[in-house]
Amino acid sequence: MQNTIDGQQRRISVVEKILSANDRLAAENRHTLDQAGVFGVNIMASPGAGKTSLIELTIKKLIGQVSLAVVDGDIATSIDADRAAAAGAVAVQINTGGECHLDAVMLAQGLTQIDLSKIDLLIVENVGNLVCPASFQLGTHKNILVASIPEGDDKPYKYPAMYRGVDALVINKIDLQPYVPFDMDYFRRGVEILNPGLEKFAVSCRTGEGIDAWLSWILMQLDENK
Amino acid sequence: MQNTIDGQQRRISVVEKILSANDRLAAENRHTLDQAGVFGVNIMASPGAGKTSLIELTIKKLIGQVSLAVVDGDIATSIDADRAAAAGAVAVQINTGGECHLDAVMLAQGLTQIDLSKIDLLIVENVGNLVCPASFQLGTHKNILVASIPEGDDKPYKYPAMYRGVDALVINKIDLQPYVPFDMDYFRRGVEILNPGLEKFAVSCRTGEGIDAWLSWILMQLDENK
Repeated sequence: MQNTIDGQQRRISVVEKILSANDRLAAENRHTLDQAGVFGVNIMASPGAGKTSLIELTIKKLIGQVSLAVVDGDIATSIDADRAAAAGAVAVQINTGGECHLDAVMLAQGLTQIDLSKIDLLIVENVGNLVCPASFQLGTHKNILVASIPEGDDKPYKYPAMYRGVDALVINKIDLQPYVPFDMDYFRRGVEILNPGLEKFAVSCRTGEGIDAWLSWILMQLDENK
Repeated sequence: MQNTIDGQQRRISVVEKILSANDRLAAENRHTLDQAGVFGVNIMASPGAGKTSLIELTIKKLIGQVSLAVVDGDIATSIDADRAAAAGAVAVQINTGGECHLDAVMLAQGLTQIDLSKIDLLIVENVGNLVCPASFQLGTHKNILVASIPEGDDKPYKYPAMYRGVDALVINKIDLQPYVPFDMDYFRRGVEILNPGLEKFAVSCRTGEGIDAWLSWILMQLDENK
């Protein structure tokens, strides 16, 4: 698109350039990971859906079996990276300084802080946001979405870009199902329209229910990537 | 800031122009509301914190006492506007077409769809997002944030811009407190640092607990605006 004197058009043009530069850098990140034999996942979700809890539990369950590192994206604080480090992983914090998503440049900077030759699995925790991260590929092998029961069953319908663009869906906080209205069939139908056949894992990171299927899937992905 | 050949600088410059244009339009929206004697609130939250449920309950409780209209911002679907209309309000849907927040232009367009001479209260429901809407004033009189218990007690620390910029905080889903870890003191301390003395309402839109204090506050604001 050519720049025009219309402000709105001009803005779109700049955004397109940023996205295309991001895609090039994402491809470089993927190459870096592949060269090192590292499998990378990008975990996205609303604030509070349970990204950090899922990562914490994944670290605790896989420790000793898989060498992993976490790159944590947050607007402010190192709360999440501290939790990942306490659970036993190499953890790198990226503070986005107000930005609402991670991008490939930020991940590239994060990767320089990790000895990739020593790890098998890289988990990237994106900024809590169900909209913007969907537009920025990071170069990881898989994009994962964490949904949660108390968020409500209408989210696939209302945030289609995010649900359409992911490779697996973890439905967290299933222990809260008795206490909130959530029609799982309605939710699943919404997901199926946007992303047919999407891998789904219903879990409670609090009780550990359902987590084994998620761990098996991650281990299978690691095997396939070797 | 002058444009430079550096891509990043140029981008910031464009964003600044957009924000400044937005502020001018927000002032126009405020003028439009004031001329019509309408009190406007902008309700923001993460996806699934309970904006729509709060609005629904507010409509049902105030109907007959207050004339109100709702402008609903969503990326896709009219689910929220349908709920507001079913609860008895004039409801206008704005589909942002992928944009992660409402801005003053979108609200100005929404206002043209409402006979402002017939209403006292305008409720704007923003896109579910704890980051981006904080940067865009709409011209409403008050910005309201809905937090929810299952989101977790660390959200003020992780999303400071949103917590800093609002005039009242509704803490929803307090009926779930027995089932999730949530340290209310830690949460409130985080809020207090960012926004000292902020009005807070602990409610459950599901059971109706605590809602009367919220309604009293809204009615008081309406009175003061007359």
